[in-house]
Amino acid sequence: MSSRDVQRPICIIGLGLIGGSLLRDLAAQKHDVYGYNHSTSGARTAIKQGYDVSDNLPELLARAEEEGAMLVLAVPMKAVGEVLDSIQEHAPTCGITDVVSVKTEVRDQVRERGMEDRYVGGHPMAGTANSGWDHSQTGLFKRAAWAITYDYATECEAAGKKIDQFWVDLFADVTRMTQMVGAEAIPVRVINHDAAVARISHLPHVLAETLAVVGDNGGILAQSLAAGSFKDGTRVAGTAPALVRQMCETNSVALVEALDEALELLQEARDSLAAEKPSIAELADAGYRARTRIEARSGARKESVSPLKISSRPVLRLHPGAPSWIAQLRQSESLGGRIEIF
Amino acid sequence: MSSRDVQRPICIIGLGLIGGSLLRDLAAQKHDVYGYNHSTSGARTAIKQGYDVSDNLPELLARAEEEGAMLVLAVPMKAVGEVLDSIQEHAPTCGITDVVSVKTEVRDQVRERGMEDRYVGGHPMAGTANSGWDHSQTGLFKRAAWAITYDYATECEAAGKKIDQFWVDLFADVTRMTQMVGAEAIPVRVINHDAAVARISHLPHVLAETLAVVGDNGGILAQSLAAGSFKDGTRVAGTAPALVRQMCETNSVALVEALDEALELLQEARDSLAAEKPSIAELADAGYRARTRIEARSGARKESVSPLKISSRPVLRLHPGAPSWIAQLRQSESLGGRIEIF
Repeated sequence: MSSRDVQRPICIIGLGLIGGSLLRDLAAQKHDVYGYNHSTSGARTAIKQGYDVSDNLPELLARAEEEGAMLVLAVPMKAVGEVLDSIQEHAPTCGITDVVSVKTEVRDQVRERGMEDRYVGGHPMAGTANSGWDHSQTGLFKRAAWAITYDYATECEAAGKKIDQFWVDLFADVTRMTQMVGAEAIPVRVINHDAAVARISHLPHVLAETLAVVGDNGGILAQSLAAGSFKDGTRVAGTAPALVRQMCETNSVALVEALDEALELLQEARDSLAAEKPSIAELADAGYRARTRIEARSGARKESVSPLKISSRPVLRLHPGAPSWIAQLRQSESLGGRIEIF
Repeated sequence: MSSRDVQRPICIIGLGLIGGSLLRDLAAQKHDVYGYNHSTSGARTAIKQGYDVSDNLPELLARAEEEGAMLVLAVPMKAVGEVLDSIQEHAPTCGITDVVSVKTEVRDQVRERGMEDRYVGGHPMAGTANSGWDHSQTGLFKRAAWAITYDYATECEAAGKKIDQFWVDLFADVTRMTQMVGAEAIPVRVINHDAAVARISHLPHVLAETLAVVGDNGGILAQSLAAGSFKDGTRVAGTAPALVRQMCETNSVALVEALDEALELLQEARDSLAAEKPSIAELADAGYRARTRIEARSGARKESVSPLKISSRPVLRLHPGAPSWIAQLRQSESLGGRIEIF
């Protein structure tokens, strides 16, 4: 085990697209990793494929407790509370992270149970329209952003309280885990994360669904004429409605804010198109400028001429627990930067 | 020249992405094709690459007239009137088609000049976010839908007037041209075309621009976290604003209708997300069902297991001018079907 690796076994609870892909990647690196799947048939398939998987959660948590493993919650939001209760009972000292796409609600559930000193939130910005173990794959997180929350540290700081070493080590291990699977760790506070994903992940789903419905209303002729712009614009409408609901409904405050901005832009565009001299100049120009900025920022991540892909995210080499490391996290967050731990 | 080929030379006016790609494809088939580009440097580049290209429009039109060529208008909407005037003067008997993305406005310009008996509208559903001769390429139209309008024929029919053979032959040759470049010819009346593209081509641009702006408002952290759904959803916001304005502003009536449907869906989603018990169930379900239908319809075009790609559009073998051929076109249009001519 090198100092770049997570310094303990990893136990993944929930083996869908994200949890399953994480298990595959960590197992491929020969890390001590095992998981739980509530679906007996999913667990059986994973076991047949050679993975260390169980469908008995209490047993698995007892093993994690005994081995001092790090727990990764990879269940749907609605199952988080129940799993946290099981953890309280069967693995009362393990450190915990999660991969749920909205962080406020998870943190609230963690706080209700007084578990915040052993929790570091996470969210990999990766996925496909598919779900379940059968769609999990190695390499899913390659070069993906993986948000890591650090609110507990700022709260300790604000309270003039020393951050306990257990939490510092957990933060380091969560970051190392993202590095092991090729992701880029982005430190971010819960409220900022949820506001950002409302704009760049949840709003895209809402707009894609709207476009799919309006296009479908055009009937079979419209569908026959549909080409790239429509197909790109509706792709994520193929995501299972239950997943979309979980993301959007648990982040409704931030999403309503993003939706209100979108509605205002669309209403203005609609009114200026309905004017005597129809115009969409303002939105077309603003959209083009925004897209150009976005491309410029992410350019190096995608189109480097070098065979070695270089991230365009500024990097901070972090020593968790060192003086002023929380200030460094805040600075990195303000730049959308990534952190690395050795 | 086989009976599947266009039965006359083709003269393309405007060698941007669409006109240039059409010239390349027809030249690759050894068809007698030549073109005009108003940009002297663009024309020079094309000539250097071995194409029969001129920057002198009156001269080129005089040649087309002498050779009985078919003219393809591939200029931006705002230049259409001026080019039609030149055609009236220098090529007064040539048949005309076009590739402009909105058909009402082109037809109005054609009618103003009394040229409707020698005009068949066209619109290939192909393109990229780029424009200009330098981005033109062979194979751009492979398997793309190419809308072909036939309003003149239905107007003759309604007036109890025989459709002149010149127009019938022109319709056949426009269809043959789309076949020569691998496209699928979809017969459609102007008003139905413009209503359809408002939904599946212009609305996607407006939503992509809106998403780009709202995402950009989230600042550098949001951009850093942005992944596939945001990138797919904003891709066409990279289209030059001038092109977007031409499409959307000349099709404002149909686009406002589509936008009003979108605004209603989004406002409802916003309100039910802002409710005490936030929900997006209705839109998530409707969007998913719509997207599933869309995929089912276009499935065979994309995911045939056969190495020979099979179109999912129903095909009608057409004999232009044969009894009841206009009724057949109407039926094909109602199915979003394609036509073939031998």
